Amino acid sequence: MKKQISAYLAEHKDEAVAWLSKTIKERSEQGLEKGVQKLVADRLEMIGLEVTTYEPGGEEFINHPYFCAGRTDFTGSPNVIGVWKGTGGGRSIVLNGHVDVVPAGDLKDWDDDPFSGAVRDGRVYGRGATDMKGGNLSSLLAIQALKKTGCKLKGDVVFHSVIEEESGGAGTLSAILKGFTADAAIIPEPTNMKIFPVQQGSMWFKITVKGKSAHGGTRYEGVSAIEKSMVAVNALLQLEKKRNDRITDPLYRNVPIPVPINIGKITGGNWPSSVPDIVVIEGRIGVAPNESLEMVREELEAAMNELDDDWLKIHKPAVEWFGAQWLPGAIKTDHDLTKVIMKRFEEVTSSAPVIEASPWGTDGGLLTNAGSTPAVVFGPGVTGLAHYHNEYIEIAKIMEAAEIIALTILDWCGVDEIEGD
Amino acid sequence: MKKQISAYLAEHKDEAVAWLSKTIKERSEQGLEKGVQKLVADRLEMIGLEVTTYEPGGEEFINHPYFCAGRTDFTGSPNVIGVWKGTGGGRSIVLNGHVDVVPAGDLKDWDDDPFSGAVRDGRVYGRGATDMKGGNLSSLLAIQALKKTGCKLKGDVVFHSVIEEESGGAGTLSAILKGFTADAAIIPEPTNMKIFPVQQGSMWFKITVKGKSAHGGTRYEGVSAIEKSMVAVNALLQLEKKRNDRITDPLYRNVPIPVPINIGKITGGNWPSSVPDIVVIEGRIGVAPNESLEMVREELEAAMNELDDDWLKIHKPAVEWFGAQWLPGAIKTDHDLTKVIMKRFEEVTSSAPVIEASPWGTDGGLLTNAGSTPAVVFGPGVTGLAHYHNEYIEIAKIMEAAEIIALTILDWCGVDEIEGD
Repeated sequence: MKKQISAYLAEHKDEAVAWLSKTIKERSEQGLEKGVQKLVADRLEMIGLEVTTYEPGGEEFINHPYFCAGRTDFTGSPNVIGVWKGTGGGRSIVLNGHVDVVPAGDLKDWDDDPFSGAVRDGRVYGRGATDMKGGNLSSLLAIQALKKTGCKLKGDVVFHSVIEEESGGAGTLSAILKGFTADAAIIPEPTNMKIFPVQQGSMWFKITVKGKSAHGGTRYEGVSAIEKSMVAVNALLQLEKKRNDRITDPLYRNVPIPVPINIGKITGGNWPSSVPDIVVIEGRIGVAPNESLEMVREELEAAMNELDDDWLKIHKPAVEWFGAQWLPGAIKTDHDLTKVIMKRFEEVTSSAPVIEASPWGTDGGLLTNAGSTPAVVFGPGVTGLAHYHNEYIEIAKIMEAAEIIALTILDWCGVDEIEGD
Repeated sequence: MKKQISAYLAEHKDEAVAWLSKTIKERSEQGLEKGVQKLVADRLEMIGLEVTTYEPGGEEFINHPYFCAGRTDFTGSPNVIGVWKGTGGGRSIVLNGHVDVVPAGDLKDWDDDPFSGAVRDGRVYGRGATDMKGGNLSSLLAIQALKKTGCKLKGDVVFHSVIEEESGGAGTLSAILKGFTADAAIIPEPTNMKIFPVQQGSMWFKITVKGKSAHGGTRYEGVSAIEKSMVAVNALLQLEKKRNDRITDPLYRNVPIPVPINIGKITGGNWPSSVPDIVVIEGRIGVAPNESLEMVREELEAAMNELDDDWLKIHKPAVEWFGAQWLPGAIKTDHDLTKVIMKRFEEVTSSAPVIEASPWGTDGGLLTNAGSTPAVVFGPGVTGLAHYHNEYIEIAKIMEAAEIIALTILDWCGVDEIEGD
């Protein structure tokens, strides 16, 4: 079986790479996902899965406490789900991946067209190559190799091709609410082939610090919102320290700041010679696997309410939560899925797997927490290339991940030997 | 003579107020000064002065070390100069004022149209009323009252109606280079009837602090330009303290920070979950009367070169000087012009004058330093209303200032009694 899979993958590599290139050319920033989802649906049909294509929506979905998106109308932005029913008696698995990609950014930074899908030097180039059309291909190839080599699995395999991961996971939430869950899940986000049983969650915050305007020549008549924002920034740094000091999970042993508070943006004042009366800080707070989003919100808000500054005690900074959020996720290191992936990784690569905690959120938090589908994140591609110019993925890693995932599915779902002939 | 002047002013108040209203309706933001300058030229002709209307230009002007403007082509933006030649043997005086006004800003903040020129409750409303069309009217009325009541002055009176004060004084610089200087000058900027023999200069700076980008989830891989900008801000506050500690001029006795460093604007980063790699700070540094602009530039640049931070020692912030600048100005408290204004103030208002140092720059710095024309700033109107919405000026103060200025001119220029009959 193992040899058959390996041989099947080797034979179908070139076709698969050409198809990946096609899915990158089919650009799929938010709102443009339809084209690539058609390609995915066609491929799932070709493999032989039951395919459901639908646009997320409905009251339960929009009003769900974990719903987070910049829109509520997903017309033209379908999810695609493929189901391969098992023969029964086995454990089911979800293979989840998103097709939405972040914008290309400044075109001047790119050597090629960002949507070239160029194939050279063993790599496929373009926005989404690493995050995560390459990883999705690993999952599809894994299923294809199992199905086409005649394997009969006991457990179901459910493939999620979702929208909206980059803005908070509405696509995966919808798939969960539609009942497309399983006993466990693999998400081939770009972990650089590391295994992430634990994923950091995160939320975005906006803090508005108020001062009092005055002419710069008599600045003592005003209160500088820039100076006051420094008090808030310092308090955020202290809060970060306090939050991280209490993290003991050994998976974070080598991580300098397991759940960082990143202050990403600052804007304040509008004239060099006026005292600035408003500063707005925007940032991202990491959420530890054992924390709820609510706990973290309360802790940050409390820190802004208790600033050690006479002005800010009266004029308390306003805290808003906006934009994206990702639930944290955690599955035990000794969970059977983790163990299976580790074993198969060693077999295929002849090296020991690296087990770590992810420094970013994925849809794994939703699958684990909202979908009762414990998720492990493991895939080809390098985080450092995601969201950057000249994004690419190594073809060899896609194929390696495909083989590891295929063998993991075999072990996890179980093979019905009687019908396997 | 004094009674005649007082009576003349009272008689001509209504006409003058109507004219002021007209000059406010004739909006004169940068580039739009032509219309109001025509009104001024006509009034100077009516009073009986020799009028020169010309557009500033020429190599000497554009390349002058004190030239500071956002443009080098002043087509359509004339200066207007009126000269009243004395009979000889007296001291000459410049009455300088600018016609350019700052933009109205957000129209929603205004109760009326910003260029209404509305007259009600003893006030004239609109952009430029206080800064400084009202003060200019005081000067014009002073000259008109002297001339029309038949007074023969020994010294020359030179009236400057200049452009570009709000962006660094190019209009006044041009008038100086054209030779329109005198033994002293009065500038009726809105001092709220205080006498400012000393004026703070100022310059605008821009400081760019660099960090290193990274994903917010692994922010320890980057260097936050926001955190590093706080080091720069703190150093600016320390520099401000050091600079002000050495100021001993008793005119600054009641000023908490004689020459402030105002940090007016901060912008940095572009994504909540990325480590910001650039922060730009814009501000204004006050220049003390005894300082040169060059000295102050060097001191601030040195402070940014010597920051106590390992990263910033290598990645030194870049300092740029941009936008407007105003030279400081100083004339002795016991200068004869100051003494004359003080005496005439007491006479007209029956109260003691307040002598202070101005918290902002005017064209007085240029007149004093580049034009050898020591300038005192004294005028109606309140600084707090300049550059703000619902700007207005009190008519009674315009008339009071006109009388004080007329009597000051009498004393300063001297009266030729023989020809005065």
